[in-house]
Amino acid sequence: MTTTKQTIYYTLTDEAPSLATCSLLPIVRTFTAAADIDVKISDISLAGRILSAFPEKLTDEQQVADGLAFLGKLTQDPSANIIKLPNISASIPQLKACIAELQTQGYDIPDYPEVAHGEEEQVTQARFGKLLGSAVNPVLREGNSDRRAPAAVKAFVRKFPHRMGKWSKASRTHADYMRGGDFFSSEQSTTVDKETDVRIEFVAKDGKVTVKKEFQLEQGEIIDGMFMSCKALREFFEDSLNDAKETGVMWSLHVKATMMKVSHPIVFGHAVTVFYKDLFEKHAELFAKLEVNPNNGLGSVYDKIASLPRSKREEIEEDIQACYSTRPEMAMVDSVKGISNLHVPSDVIVDASMPAMIRSSGQMWGPDGKQKDTKAVMPESTYSRIYQEMINFCKTNGAFDPTTMGTVPNVGLMAKKAEEYGSHDKTFELAEDGIMRVVDTAGNVLTQHEVEKGDIWRACQTKDEPVRDWVKLAVTRARQSDTPAIFWLDPERAHDMELAKKVRVYLQDHDTTGLDIRIASYDEAIRISMERQIRGQDTISVTGNVLRDYLTDLFPIMELGTSAKMLSIVPMLKGGGMYETGAGGSAPKHVQQVEEENHLRWDSLGEFMALAVSLEDMGIKNDNPRATTLSKTLDQATGKLLENNKSPSRKTGELDNRGSHFYLGMYWAQAVAAQTDDKELATLFAPLAKTLTENEATIVSELSAVQGRSAELDGYYHAKRDTVKRVMRPSATLNSALASVHQ
Amino acid sequence: MTTTKQTIYYTLTDEAPSLATCSLLPIVRTFTAAADIDVKISDISLAGRILSAFPEKLTDEQQVADGLAFLGKLTQDPSANIIKLPNISASIPQLKACIAELQTQGYDIPDYPEVAHGEEEQVTQARFGKLLGSAVNPVLREGNSDRRAPAAVKAFVRKFPHRMGKWSKASRTHADYMRGGDFFSSEQSTTVDKETDVRIEFVAKDGKVTVKKEFQLEQGEIIDGMFMSCKALREFFEDSLNDAKETGVMWSLHVKATMMKVSHPIVFGHAVTVFYKDLFEKHAELFAKLEVNPNNGLGSVYDKIASLPRSKREEIEEDIQACYSTRPEMAMVDSVKGISNLHVPSDVIVDASMPAMIRSSGQMWGPDGKQKDTKAVMPESTYSRIYQEMINFCKTNGAFDPTTMGTVPNVGLMAKKAEEYGSHDKTFELAEDGIMRVVDTAGNVLTQHEVEKGDIWRACQTKDEPVRDWVKLAVTRARQSDTPAIFWLDPERAHDMELAKKVRVYLQDHDTTGLDIRIASYDEAIRISMERQIRGQDTISVTGNVLRDYLTDLFPIMELGTSAKMLSIVPMLKGGGMYETGAGGSAPKHVQQVEEENHLRWDSLGEFMALAVSLEDMGIKNDNPRATTLSKTLDQATGKLLENNKSPSRKTGELDNRGSHFYLGMYWAQAVAAQTDDKELATLFAPLAKTLTENEATIVSELSAVQGRSAELDGYYHAKRDTVKRVMRPSATLNSALASVHQ
Repeated sequence: MTTTKQTIYYTLTDEAPSLATCSLLPIVRTFTAAADIDVKISDISLAGRILSAFPEKLTDEQQVADGLAFLGKLTQDPSANIIKLPNISASIPQLKACIAELQTQGYDIPDYPEVAHGEEEQVTQARFGKLLGSAVNPVLREGNSDRRAPAAVKAFVRKFPHRMGKWSKASRTHADYMRGGDFFSSEQSTTVDKETDVRIEFVAKDGKVTVKKEFQLEQGEIIDGMFMSCKALREFFEDSLNDAKETGVMWSLHVKATMMKVSHPIVFGHAVTVFYKDLFEKHAELFAKLEVNPNNGLGSVYDKIASLPRSKREEIEEDIQACYSTRPEMAMVDSVKGISNLHVPSDVIVDASMPAMIRSSGQMWGPDGKQKDTKAVMPESTYSRIYQEMINFCKTNGAFDPTTMGTVPNVGLMAKKAEEYGSHDKTFELAEDGIMRVVDTAGNVLTQHEVEKGDIWRACQTKDEPVRDWVKLAVTRARQSDTPAIFWLDPERAHDMELAKKVRVYLQDHDTTGLDIRIASYDEAIRISMERQIRGQDTISVTGNVLRDYLTDLFPIMELGTSAKMLSIVPMLKGGGMYETGAGGSAPKHVQQVEEENHLRWDSLGEFMALAVSLEDMGIKNDNPRATTLSKTLDQATGKLLENNKSPSRKTGELDNRGSHFYLGMYWAQAVAAQTDDKELATLFAPLAKTLTENEATIVSELSAVQGRSAELDGYYHAKRDTVKRVMRPSATLNSALASVHQ
Repeated sequence: MTTTKQTIYYTLTDEAPSLATCSLLPIVRTFTAAADIDVKISDISLAGRILSAFPEKLTDEQQVADGLAFLGKLTQDPSANIIKLPNISASIPQLKACIAELQTQGYDIPDYPEVAHGEEEQVTQARFGKLLGSAVNPVLREGNSDRRAPAAVKAFVRKFPHRMGKWSKASRTHADYMRGGDFFSSEQSTTVDKETDVRIEFVAKDGKVTVKKEFQLEQGEIIDGMFMSCKALREFFEDSLNDAKETGVMWSLHVKATMMKVSHPIVFGHAVTVFYKDLFEKHAELFAKLEVNPNNGLGSVYDKIASLPRSKREEIEEDIQACYSTRPEMAMVDSVKGISNLHVPSDVIVDASMPAMIRSSGQMWGPDGKQKDTKAVMPESTYSRIYQEMINFCKTNGAFDPTTMGTVPNVGLMAKKAEEYGSHDKTFELAEDGIMRVVDTAGNVLTQHEVEKGDIWRACQTKDEPVRDWVKLAVTRARQSDTPAIFWLDPERAHDMELAKKVRVYLQDHDTTGLDIRIASYDEAIRISMERQIRGQDTISVTGNVLRDYLTDLFPIMELGTSAKMLSIVPMLKGGGMYETGAGGSAPKHVQQVEEENHLRWDSLGEFMALAVSLEDMGIKNDNPRATTLSKTLDQATGKLLENNKSPSRKTGELDNRGSHFYLGMYWAQAVAAQTDDKELATLFAPLAKTLTENEATIVSELSAVQGRSAELDGYYHAKRDTVKRVMRPSATLNSALASVHQ
């Protein structure tokens, strides 16, 4: 494929980020045009993806290009330069709402068939299926991950630190995890020395072999097999509940049912049926008939019994209440509404809930609405121990101090779906006792486990090329930031030891003279990193995929109060670059505030930072010194914006997203006008700098004048672009100042 | 000096160990005689030392040799082979009691003058002064320390594990220590490159210089200066008390006033006056008049007010009680008698009290007689962090399991009083603000601190030769036991970094191929050691003097339930060897039980083990293969004794110390008779093996027959040897069997 070399592809996504884009892009383009760089929109919104999935249903005018497919191909192009904003990972309710909206707008999109009847509906369901959940990241993340807190953000936090709850040395909070019978303790791992087909087989007690899955492994690929014992898990939950009850500490469960889509809801379900054991035992027959699914939480019980006769429903509700008298207090998601930790599997997501707890004095909210010490249960021990380590550390050293602490950036193995597990088609809940094994075409058994009914078995793959690239990226980052780097690889984990072998070999491909690059267990790595951190020192964490996900929330939330302020780069295997922005989703609540009060609290800081590295990369790769100058001056502008606290406020009437864009533009123009590397560029932007500076008060007042009243966007998932542009660009003074630059 | 080459010097000490010696030596000599080894008694008992200090007062018949002086000289002899049993470190009351006993026995020893009037009394006081406190160890410890748990003892513990209290993950117990203003944070350290005289000077605010001490440093000697801020210490106590009160956790203080004789009583005194602040403020004038010394604990208040009129005394007692209402609950030494942690400075000794707490679920006894979680306050942070580390570890991993855990032996820097501080003549409590500095003859300032009134300043010395020997000993042990060794040297401690420089240089003198020798901070070192330990792996701790003292209690108490079962060797700088036995003192309560019920519960295991290594060394150094054979067979006998649980019982009527000696003799004779390395020796001992085996029941019954009635020893500190021998050797069958071997 051919692409224009000097193009930045800027994704149009959903909800708040897509609104922000309408305000920000005109400013950005004013600058990039001066460096002959085109910033092109690529629509990967849910609505856009639905429309492009049903071209035959649309008129010629209605048809849209498949933005995601385009970008997917682009990732293979060495010149790719993509800025990726947060998008909707659609649940079924979201998908249905979007379809309904498109239908209202006159698009002939079929309804989503929850249960498919007949072949046509099956095809339709399958097409929609590809749009559900995390459908975008796997297509675009064709590289490993490089995340760090930019210096400007650290400086901002030192000046305006977020609140950190005090830790008591006598805190009772702790992490609780299995000491055996889990994935960690059963993991087996092999590297195949040549390309081979493999199959996952189940061997029943009677010797009958069932092939569960067939797939191919590349040369040098690592394949793991592991399982969690259902019996051990349920015993662990029972013990853990009893211990919390006895010691009088609150109980909370932390899983990642959204990412480990297959395995973690099952784990969650066991927690529900153990906690409410008496309930589920007493009503076993009825619940089976009602198709109560504990994996969907206690909420599922309430849903399913809603249709029962009142007396029966009340009996069950009383039985639910009775369970609480024999169990420990449970952490609440919403203590006012009585929504506990076990209500819905997706309410408490470990990588967000644990840092939040650690930031809040190691406490969660109890049923009485008070903050309390808690037993934080994370059954699978693999990564749980890092949280226990941080809890111990905070008990010993007190809460982290954002104004002095060092930073822990991350280099994460991610490319080609490395280490993805628990979420995919190679995870199985066993229906009977037997053996699960991975066998290659030559009949070699790569992994083998004796399993029992109810056990969860899963495979995990890691290709060689991403590992090689990951090692290179780690060395590059260690060199560029002159910072020690630790590969978090646990000597007690079979998979990590296979990985460590590769790391040791591939490190030899690089000049590591003068670098401090170590391999350490998770415990040790986090401990070293934290010890350095409280002394103001930085340490790069080089980790696998899941730890990448966890640590790029954990450390940023301590350091910056949020992970949204991290610079997130995906240097692609083929040479291009993707720059991800923000975190924490696409913020539906923000849109609501716009609709009601025309105030957008979305913070585009992530976009500013992503754009700066995108331009930097463009400057280097295309020998475009003007792009470099724009990158440097944009960084200065972002720094100034943070320093002067011109980020959006949450409060209607105060500076919002649009106002922060104005300030960015003003500071950027001032920085360009002031720099001396490119006189011509300085001259070009001097008038804009002058106009914006002189009209600061006018523009800010124009921007705030529109606030306080409702705003019509003509759609939610597929709002009208023109309407949105009008709403998002209300300052005539700013608009004309921008327009005048290239006239 | 000349010594017989084939001589083991066996110390005659005090109380229980000296009684045990009378039973054990005849057995031992029966065996060693066969290898032409003489076992000679060397009297270093308190009574013996007093007698030898006043030769002019005694008749010719009464005069005794100065055993300690003899052994002191012997330490400089490469062939020295000394077995050192626990002795009395005499307090003044003990000294006076001993003098009184000797006077009764007709020895013309003068009374101890507590306050010396006139020159003669001053001379007398000075002579007695040399016998007080820890007077023996500094003379004999002419080498570094090598302590480990013998394999037989570990095997015994695996079979008969001691009780370990369960740890709750939600335990509130923690170590609390200063985060600044203490010795750790102020330490300065220098290595002098040539021999020099130095002086410790105090520079007052008006510039006046006072020389506090003059002494000499050797070439390559490390000199440290450090201080603890009185203000910071008192603030720390206040904060710590308030925190315990607020969080509802018990408060306990752990110092080492016996070892850090000068500095720690002062620290303890501040704890007393902060805890009872209202009391000491209200009665300041009266307490000054009464000469109440808070460094002697609250007990001092009770002592001094005893003579006051009843109404005044009751007022003060009420004021003491009032303090408790504003302060947290305090850990008790004796909750029945109401003796708290702050009553007497020597009641709670950190290196014993902290392991005891950790063994007991991390709990101490409260005023209500119940076990409770506690804030364990150890103001000086230097070593306190290792306890916090172990507490965190136990919260995370549960109590240690003696049946599976690995061992942490110690190689400790000790020779030439290395790192002795806090206890000696170079510790000062400052009377005014100013500067404390160490200056050499050339006027170079080696350390310098700004200090305030009340601050505690101390110097610390470490000579080069002991360090070199210590490194060699560490490498030797790592090689001999094929075990990783960690030098515990903290990168944040000035002294340790001076030491680390030497360690790196001296390690190059040795072949370390294939050895795992690391340098790590205290935190890291203990963590690595514990992680290995719970996996059944051993790790040698190579530490300075104070950590040696702490760790050789901490780990043995976890592993073996006591530190008395450790093998404790002092390979002397000049080539000889000293083998220390037991720990925990000379057991006065044991003697009481003998006097009342003729049952000696003293366990001579330490002597058995010491004798085995003493013989092993003799075999190697004197090319005496028979000594080697005796050593091996003695080890086998000790192993069998432990395996068959033939150690002394605490209960009168059951097997006691004498019975365990019989079993040792029987197993030893059986092992010698069974070995094939030395046929002649086997033949010599076969009859003894046969006689003892056949008469086991008779001998055991003869030994138990004497129990249950009182036994007269004709003295306590200076019991009559003949009387003691009669009491300690009541089995005619055993005595004649032993006598028949060399007839």
